[in-house]
Amino acid sequence: MPEQFFIHELPNGMTLVGQHMPNVSSAAMTLIVPAGASHDAPQAEGSAAVAAEWCLRGAGGRDTHQLHDALDALGARHSESAQSEHIHFTSAQLGRNLADVLAIYADIARRPQLQESTFAPCRDLVSQDLASLEDEPAHKCNVLLREKFYPHPLGRCVYGREESLREMTPERVRRHVRALFTPVGAILAVAGNIAWEAFRNLAERHFGNWQARRPKPVKTRKAEGGSTHIKKDSAQVHIAMAHRSVPIGDGHYYPARMAECILSGGMSSRLFTEVREKRGLVYHVSTHYGSLKGLAGMFTYAGTRPEVAQETFDVTVRELRRLSEGIEPDELARARTQLKSSLIMQGQSTIARADALAGDWYHLGRLRSLAEMSEAIDNVTAEHVLAYLRGYPAGDFTTLVIGPEPINTGAAER
Amino acid sequence: MPEQFFIHELPNGMTLVGQHMPNVSSAAMTLIVPAGASHDAPQAEGSAAVAAEWCLRGAGGRDTHQLHDALDALGARHSESAQSEHIHFTSAQLGRNLADVLAIYADIARRPQLQESTFAPCRDLVSQDLASLEDEPAHKCNVLLREKFYPHPLGRCVYGREESLREMTPERVRRHVRALFTPVGAILAVAGNIAWEAFRNLAERHFGNWQARRPKPVKTRKAEGGSTHIKKDSAQVHIAMAHRSVPIGDGHYYPARMAECILSGGMSSRLFTEVREKRGLVYHVSTHYGSLKGLAGMFTYAGTRPEVAQETFDVTVRELRRLSEGIEPDELARARTQLKSSLIMQGQSTIARADALAGDWYHLGRLRSLAEMSEAIDNVTAEHVLAYLRGYPAGDFTTLVIGPEPINTGAAER
Repeated sequence: MPEQFFIHELPNGMTLVGQHMPNVSSAAMTLIVPAGASHDAPQAEGSAAVAAEWCLRGAGGRDTHQLHDALDALGARHSESAQSEHIHFTSAQLGRNLADVLAIYADIARRPQLQESTFAPCRDLVSQDLASLEDEPAHKCNVLLREKFYPHPLGRCVYGREESLREMTPERVRRHVRALFTPVGAILAVAGNIAWEAFRNLAERHFGNWQARRPKPVKTRKAEGGSTHIKKDSAQVHIAMAHRSVPIGDGHYYPARMAECILSGGMSSRLFTEVREKRGLVYHVSTHYGSLKGLAGMFTYAGTRPEVAQETFDVTVRELRRLSEGIEPDELARARTQLKSSLIMQGQSTIARADALAGDWYHLGRLRSLAEMSEAIDNVTAEHVLAYLRGYPAGDFTTLVIGPEPINTGAAER
Repeated sequence: MPEQFFIHELPNGMTLVGQHMPNVSSAAMTLIVPAGASHDAPQAEGSAAVAAEWCLRGAGGRDTHQLHDALDALGARHSESAQSEHIHFTSAQLGRNLADVLAIYADIARRPQLQESTFAPCRDLVSQDLASLEDEPAHKCNVLLREKFYPHPLGRCVYGREESLREMTPERVRRHVRALFTPVGAILAVAGNIAWEAFRNLAERHFGNWQARRPKPVKTRKAEGGSTHIKKDSAQVHIAMAHRSVPIGDGHYYPARMAECILSGGMSSRLFTEVREKRGLVYHVSTHYGSLKGLAGMFTYAGTRPEVAQETFDVTVRELRRLSEGIEPDELARARTQLKSSLIMQGQSTIARADALAGDWYHLGRLRSLAEMSEAIDNVTAEHVLAYLRGYPAGDFTTLVIGPEPINTGAAER
């Protein structure tokens, strides 16, 4: 059965996108507003993360307790997070409860109470998110790598800095919300058991009169890049490295995802085979593709024992580079099957589909069907992957190492 | 549409269970064999975990590389893990590839090659899993809590001990596999787009002549319990505590799950509201229900700053206990909606359903439909929850704290 998509742009700049999934009883919604961490004011880093928490502490006529009760009473499984460009609000529930949940999210996005009394716990939670990175060096390693890899402030740690959080004030975060919670660039995506016409009418009623305000674009400066060692008396050495890739809309996009899959998709992948399985060097090794708008990277992580950290690093870089020397037909076939298998699984999850629709609209200004992506994957040849790798070779790495001793990352700087 | 279940017991003691999900294109399978970590021989702790890795390193006529290639070529998204009672093999793929994947898993379970040359990397990976706990204190805290809470060796850390892994030999692990990989008590569950008759015939061909061998039952000794502090110079204090609950088949089971949900399900839950939201005390706080066969607990975890660790502990224990003083009708209604909402989501995932079928058969010797569970949840009253709490009060806690300083857990020992 062909996939059914819907798009409706409101005059104020907000877009509604949807997919009807006839065989499920749930419906998921994702609302993204362009108020993410890259918009945090200088000295107020962490504002977006505090705002994401704070908006749930009372909105419209409901106080914190009433708001949480209302969502839980609707069986809404929801989450909120600040990311680089947007704050994301996601909720999945039975299709028949979608309308009531949507009304609550209209309050959250448009009428958060942001009361003095609920501010401190929100700020403290973000402070603890930041502090907890110290006990999760693998996570910290990847967070810091993004900061160095992307042009500042796009890769910024969403939790801010200890100092900026200590000095954060309610008024500072209210300014963030007032300036950046706007329909211009906001996207509301739904997927699942929905009646589109009814949903669209409802969404228009809730968001149609939301006044447009165009946020100032984020000024960026050149990425820092380079090689960083953070000394820590950890049991493992955590090695992360990133190199440039193509953004989602690029002609090389599907070849790039095939390259990622050949390197890191499954137990027959190059990194798994060469680094983990043959040599038993690492606890975990993987490469994943990540993309902001118009900017993307391949992010590789390995966690290993100090005594083999240098060897792990060298072998990993070698494998990343060796890919451009040639690709076996069966590797290509396996990667194709795996990517299509992932698509099928994603197609069964309303949350995954709602997120994908919002992402497609943001990155591409259109929606991709699973059929389109599946066909595009089928059409990638080994030559396409090699052409991509010639344009975006594994080199000029940004590296970040957390562990007792530095390692020599010179080999990666070429 | 009513859910369609299938059960077929083989004469050798293995059980095939299945659910037909007409609207999906994937099919997931879970094979559990009764060779989990609680069966590890003394001085050979970690055997099950090494075996789970090693069985994938060549089986039947395929060497490691061929085996991984074959699974990836079928788009199989698979995982292997040693748990307390069983080793679990799970794989999800397109329904049409299930037959080929099943043939490979018959090799893995019955004809693993277990060659000398592939042993060391498997043992090293388990060693690194163990070492990595040092960099993940929240995880370590919960692992050690289970060791203390359950009768030994049922809660044993599946990664073994540093010493037992250093002295592990290929022959030691082969003995584990030979003695414990047996159809007696093995369960093969499938869920998704399957034709049951064809699947059953195929499974009978692959496993019907697997020779029965009855494994020795695990001898247990009394749980250690008590209060443990592990000094670590971590940024956060990690607090875990467990108290007894009822196993899955018990008449109090659904009331127990309602209690768990009122305490910890969603943002309106008691722990979230009282510990995290009102006081901003913690980065994370939650209670989850866990069950082995005939033995269950409520496991509570809180991660917090050292200066409020004692307060966090005291408030958390107080909330766990306060539940028995009364439950509001709206709390009960919300918990009911949330549990049923979870069921709906689970019902859409082939992997979740295959795991649930295997679990049901193991714990109950029968399969529960989502409709049955939904009705059971509807029938739970506040009085049922209070009756459960009278039988299984929040007390006699086993506690485990990782952090710079001990805290006073005396309040929990009553």
